[in-house]
Amino acid sequence: MNLLTITQEEEGYFLSLLARFSATGGTPNGGVCRVAGTEADKLARDLMVQELATLGTSTLVDCIGNMFGRLRLGSSKGSILCGSHLDSQSTGGRFDGSLGVVAALAAARVFRRTAQAVPYVHDLVVCNWTNEEGARFTPSLTGSSVFTGTLPIDTALALKDASGISLSTALQTIGYLGSDYVPRDAIAALELHIEQGPLLEKAGVALGIVTSSWPARKVILRFTGEPSHTGPTPMTLRRDALQAAARFMVLAHDLAAKNTSDPIVSIGRIEVWPNSTNVVPCEARVWLEVRHEDPSICEIVGRNLLAVASKKSVLRGCNLEVEQDVLRSAVGLSQPGMALAEKVCAKLGVRHQSIRTVAGHDAIALAAALPSTLLFVPSAGGISHSPREFTSESHLLAGFRVLVQWLHRRLLGESRSA
Amino acid sequence: MNLLTITQEEEGYFLSLLARFSATGGTPNGGVCRVAGTEADKLARDLMVQELATLGTSTLVDCIGNMFGRLRLGSSKGSILCGSHLDSQSTGGRFDGSLGVVAALAAARVFRRTAQAVPYVHDLVVCNWTNEEGARFTPSLTGSSVFTGTLPIDTALALKDASGISLSTALQTIGYLGSDYVPRDAIAALELHIEQGPLLEKAGVALGIVTSSWPARKVILRFTGEPSHTGPTPMTLRRDALQAAARFMVLAHDLAAKNTSDPIVSIGRIEVWPNSTNVVPCEARVWLEVRHEDPSICEIVGRNLLAVASKKSVLRGCNLEVEQDVLRSAVGLSQPGMALAEKVCAKLGVRHQSIRTVAGHDAIALAAALPSTLLFVPSAGGISHSPREFTSESHLLAGFRVLVQWLHRRLLGESRSA
Repeated sequence: MNLLTITQEEEGYFLSLLARFSATGGTPNGGVCRVAGTEADKLARDLMVQELATLGTSTLVDCIGNMFGRLRLGSSKGSILCGSHLDSQSTGGRFDGSLGVVAALAAARVFRRTAQAVPYVHDLVVCNWTNEEGARFTPSLTGSSVFTGTLPIDTALALKDASGISLSTALQTIGYLGSDYVPRDAIAALELHIEQGPLLEKAGVALGIVTSSWPARKVILRFTGEPSHTGPTPMTLRRDALQAAARFMVLAHDLAAKNTSDPIVSIGRIEVWPNSTNVVPCEARVWLEVRHEDPSICEIVGRNLLAVASKKSVLRGCNLEVEQDVLRSAVGLSQPGMALAEKVCAKLGVRHQSIRTVAGHDAIALAAALPSTLLFVPSAGGISHSPREFTSESHLLAGFRVLVQWLHRRLLGESRSA
Repeated sequence: MNLLTITQEEEGYFLSLLARFSATGGTPNGGVCRVAGTEADKLARDLMVQELATLGTSTLVDCIGNMFGRLRLGSSKGSILCGSHLDSQSTGGRFDGSLGVVAALAAARVFRRTAQAVPYVHDLVVCNWTNEEGARFTPSLTGSSVFTGTLPIDTALALKDASGISLSTALQTIGYLGSDYVPRDAIAALELHIEQGPLLEKAGVALGIVTSSWPARKVILRFTGEPSHTGPTPMTLRRDALQAAARFMVLAHDLAAKNTSDPIVSIGRIEVWPNSTNVVPCEARVWLEVRHEDPSICEIVGRNLLAVASKKSVLRGCNLEVEQDVLRSAVGLSQPGMALAEKVCAKLGVRHQSIRTVAGHDAIALAAALPSTLLFVPSAGGISHSPREFTSESHLLAGFRVLVQWLHRRLLGESRSA
């Protein structure tokens, strides 16, 4: 296996392009706020269009705002997708998502140079998947799930943010609601992402080759009570939905902490109605997540939590409704893709290990439709969705090098089912 | 003391006008959603302008959107203010606020008829006070507090709702940001309101003569943690601000329930950031209210609650900041005003009792600047800020009759300091 030469200038371009994306929607505390469908998202998308144009590649936008830049390299049919997402959480960092798009753009630049001399058989398609984060529009992984057909396009376009604006309107507003193009000839996908957890750093390893995802149970609970005045209504007559939700949230964490299987139980979002200082809340919706590598533990912990939420001592006169209860099953990544990544790491001398992903990723969604490969670089302190998110330059470069060599072999037709 | 005759037609007008206001911003479940500065608020204000016009009275609007309709009756200086507020909570009922404005309008119609024959010495000014509820713009009692000078006009106009829209812009949008008129010659104020608590109903009494308000301590707590991914971030490394807030909310209620002085402790509002399903919340702001008739208990309970909020077992690595901590002191209503109300009740044969108000009211705010009288009619089941808010027709009429007779004596110059 011969390695492709990557020039210092090309690696410099990769790092400086990442910095340019960091500045787009960058926050004063060193983070990034580039929520899907906002002006900052538009600016990052514009930057992607501009960089693809310098490669002589036009950008195509599909009906859910996914962006594709096709580098024509191949003699035979079939394209390789490489990318990630440009959207971030409100409290996002500089690496989550951007890294994968930037690495794909910088890799395309390498192949543009080498294409004359190398007999590639496939095209490379640089991708940006819409609303991976689900920060403003839930569910997450929207664009990649529409691409594979898992999420119906009408459902996706109709998703609404907290102010009632639809994803369709938001994409139209920023000029990225596209026509019908999709790269139907895609035969494989690759995504480079940060780990967002502490395992690689702890193991002193530069690269994680993801084998599969953790299952996750995603539940929306709706507590309903009765509105009344916070002044003269006697406390014993109240049916306070926020109080019921608070009791549930505390017991949910306590239950998780006591469970020796170490499930991850999170409540990231709550909506309260009417949320007025002078009114006893009559509705509280709570977004609950249970994650564990073993789906039966997701199942058991989820069931126990629902039992806790139904307790009289929690509800105190309120009612409980389970609005949503979805199990995202574990998804396996491509075996040949992993094997190729191991081969590349060995050749490059990059320390690597197999790892499972706790977080969802576009590569996981894409795996429903085509062989998909997901590579991780370490996250300092395991911190993510935070301005403190950090990956060192040497780890970024190691990830970039593995991605380029992996693509090089794959575009040449190696491990056809990767 | 002679009673003024009120015709059946005039009482019918009072009840039917109340029904017309109920329909303005009415909700399918029989409630009212007429939040300050919204289209529904505008429609109710328009209806008030129209009704005043039928009395030959034009409506004046001041710099915070308070509305005044002056019925010229008097030979000497000094006007009597009578009214309440047309805004409601999102989950509002048909009586809270509207009743007082409608009763004042219907009373003005009575005096329009009797003015020729009766030597009134004062004018009557029908009032609608802006944003009494504080549902969209906090603090509540905005218009009446600006009127008395307690709340600076610049502060009031700059109040922002959750989407960042200012009260100034909201009032301008609905066409009720007025010029500088205020009835500077006001010498007394009267407000008829529903009790919003269960005491009058329990006592089998038709009318409550309010002696003073309960003090209330209003605190805004801000818990700050650190954002991170709800998936791969180990639970022990998290600093979850919503979890800290939940632990505080539960302990706050438990502490109130154990306290033998029966303080009223409420949390009606919470704001969480970034409030995204996949992010451990890094900020939670909690609006806490403590009410008790004894200010020293407000003080002690408030202090104990702040101590609870600072506990390590509550914070779990988060920080706490007290953003606001205000004690609204008890306010006394006008003694001569109460005496006149008692006299009127006795003459009319209306069962009445003295009562304190737990909730804030415009009459309480106005008491800072002029003798103010507040009358309550019973609330069925003590329920308010709810579509289930209800006062029977006979109680409404009893309240209206007391209000008309009180105004009749007062406009004649009786109990000059009422």
